[in-house]
Amino acid sequence: MKRYEEKTMSTNEIYKGKVIDLQVDEVQLPNGKTSKRELVTHPGAVAVIALTEEGKLVLVEQYRKPLEKSILEIPAGKIEKNETPATTALRELEEETAYKADSVDYLISYYTSPGFADEIIYIYKANQIQLVVGADVGDEDEFVDVVEVDQKEAMQLITEERIHDAKTIQAIYYLLLHDWKTK
Amino acid sequence: MKRYEEKTMSTNEIYKGKVIDLQVDEVQLPNGKTSKRELVTHPGAVAVIALTEEGKLVLVEQYRKPLEKSILEIPAGKIEKNETPATTALRELEEETAYKADSVDYLISYYTSPGFADEIIYIYKANQIQLVVGADVGDEDEFVDVVEVDQKEAMQLITEERIHDAKTIQAIYYLLLHDWKTK
Repeated sequence: MKRYEEKTMSTNEIYKGKVIDLQVDEVQLPNGKTSKRELVTHPGAVAVIALTEEGKLVLVEQYRKPLEKSILEIPAGKIEKNETPATTALRELEEETAYKADSVDYLISYYTSPGFADEIIYIYKANQIQLVVGADVGDEDEFVDVVEVDQKEAMQLITEERIHDAKTIQAIYYLLLHDWKTK
Repeated sequence: MKRYEEKTMSTNEIYKGKVIDLQVDEVQLPNGKTSKRELVTHPGAVAVIALTEEGKLVLVEQYRKPLEKSILEIPAGKIEKNETPATTALRELEEETAYKADSVDYLISYYTSPGFADEIIYIYKANQIQLVVGADVGDEDEFVDVVEVDQKEAMQLITEERIHDAKTIQAIYYLLLHDWKTK
């Protein structure tokens, strides 16, 4: 749908980075006036809901520089060139948690911050995960710990704001609506 | 928690805007190596879950320049200077939908994109909403339509990706877990 479309009059490229780019567009509004829009572009991301055999959700603890703190999140990462989202899901799960999935099923996708960014995140559910013996987690630029939680622990961590990001809370709500029970 | 803290070695301020700022920090990783982090700062936002007397969820259709399309979202907006999140919730609900709430209850907050942005969104539930007679919606920089949906319509709109952002899907999951039923 293009209702109330804002036509681009000019684009000012501010920054091209590793993860994001920033541009500022001058746009024409539906009433003919002009305004500025600050636009972050992002390659898109994938996140994975993975339950262990015991029904625990696999989380990673990771320092998030924008927040200046560590939070617990479902495994996730940006889509690399020439990857399909499903490939990213399998890769990120194994890199961040040392769990390998037989397969992944696509569940849903959503924009994280449609006011200023085009980042979209694809959510997958991992099927039959198994620990890869001898595998390390993280990479040279990424330091993570793996934490597995049951539903009661997950709800407590939301209350404590140790789980505090959109995709992970969404994943827990999804599980409560499906496999997990609220009580 | 500061586990795996990344220490700031230097900060390069790239852009200061209306809604967001961008800086690139050089950080020291836990292994002593350095890396770059692209950091978007945002004042924070508020979104409102409002049900009409008939149990319909109040949505706004709005053109989102980063996506180059219109999507349906729960009413939301950024926190202005000297506002509490609850004040923002009441203001945005009335500005975007012409509904006034008796009061709002805080439900949950979360970071939208913790990998590159510090944007946090506070979710409120509006109590006893009433249409303000003669009110216009939107402002000189904002063009919106109000759409009210029941649970079946909401699920259909998610499938069609007309509802396609984190906070709105989260709100619908929340309602399904509470007031609304899945079937």
